[in-house]
Amino acid sequence: MAGGGAAASALSSPWRALLQRALDANAHLKHSTFFQLATVGAGGRPANRTVVFRGFQEHCDKIQINTDARSNKIGEIKEWPLGEICWYFTDSWEQFRISGIIDVIDGSSPDPAKLQQREKAWFASSVKSRSQYLGQSPGVPVANDDHIKDVHIDPSAAPVDAYCLLTLDPEKVDYVNLKSNQRLMFTRTQEGDESSDWMAEKVSP
Amino acid sequence: MAGGGAAASALSSPWRALLQRALDANAHLKHSTFFQLATVGAGGRPANRTVVFRGFQEHCDKIQINTDARSNKIGEIKEWPLGEICWYFTDSWEQFRISGIIDVIDGSSPDPAKLQQREKAWFASSVKSRSQYLGQSPGVPVANDDHIKDVHIDPSAAPVDAYCLLTLDPEKVDYVNLKSNQRLMFTRTQEGDESSDWMAEKVSP
Repeated sequence: MAGGGAAASALSSPWRALLQRALDANAHLKHSTFFQLATVGAGGRPANRTVVFRGFQEHCDKIQINTDARSNKIGEIKEWPLGEICWYFTDSWEQFRISGIIDVIDGSSPDPAKLQQREKAWFASSVKSRSQYLGQSPGVPVANDDHIKDVHIDPSAAPVDAYCLLTLDPEKVDYVNLKSNQRLMFTRTQEGDESSDWMAEKVSP
Repeated sequence: MAGGGAAASALSSPWRALLQRALDANAHLKHSTFFQLATVGAGGRPANRTVVFRGFQEHCDKIQINTDARSNKIGEIKEWPLGEICWYFTDSWEQFRISGIIDVIDGSSPDPAKLQQREKAWFASSVKSRSQYLGQSPGVPVANDDHIKDVHIDPSAAPVDAYCLLTLDPEKVDYVNLKSNQRLMFTRTQEGDESSDWMAEKVSP
């Protein structure tokens, strides 16, 4: 689900077209949908990890990421919801730095529309990917002789408690193309659920 | 300079052997020496960008990165010197998250040993890479008709003012292998210039 080309054109956020082009140009690489998400943890410590792009939320520019509600980052992001994605495309030598506010949508969300988004993202994941949320909590010590148990999940089962959807709402996108040596800075000038205005500026790389 | 295999074995920081193996296994990929460095900028905003591994500093585990002294991150890192590297190896499916303290070594450093390191790292870079520091400051607006001027640098010339060496001194390394589904957490238990003790723990991925 490397997504939302049609929505991109409809919305016409100017950086979306560049991102879609990069996704298309690098689509033959499995890791082209992987990017690094930086957040700030306890004591102001930067945290950085590879996550998978799960497409855009419908009718807007919010970037979707699946994660385990039991991982450290959930508490950290609830505390300090700022994030910056660094997305480097290894074949086309393009980098997108996308910063914005992160929304944590777990099963406890009081908003029915968000719970619906979470359910939709859950069913958009592969069954194998969903079964990961039935395993042990991430980051807890394991004994050397512990073996990963095979877990099976009913393909029609609703999202499990451990499944959490993150959405990052972009406010600034810093794009650089290392082949053409061009850099563009996109800044959102107006907030809105359905429409956003963006300013683009050409800057030195 | 994708480096320091011999030094790694000599020092025997346990994660260095894993990292060297990953570098070797992915050496055929140009981007295997690229990683994402997260820091914290003004207002507690996370910042994340792709940088190039310039080897380890001699006789220790400090990771070297070349950067432009005129970029925003320099002021931000001087203010808040914590960083986390996320280094994903796309062929072997291994991730290293390396967090630690960053030292900014520009031409104004009062420490002769650090200035010497900076000079050494400067000459270890290609002449083409060095000439980048003679260009425009990064991130400043450019007119559409501005063309990148060809700049030439004397190969024997000392580091220019805009050249800055960053070193990240690792305190924690979170290693995960997505093929074997194994994760190891390395924590430094003792500080020291020449030797460090590390604790390793197997944790759930």
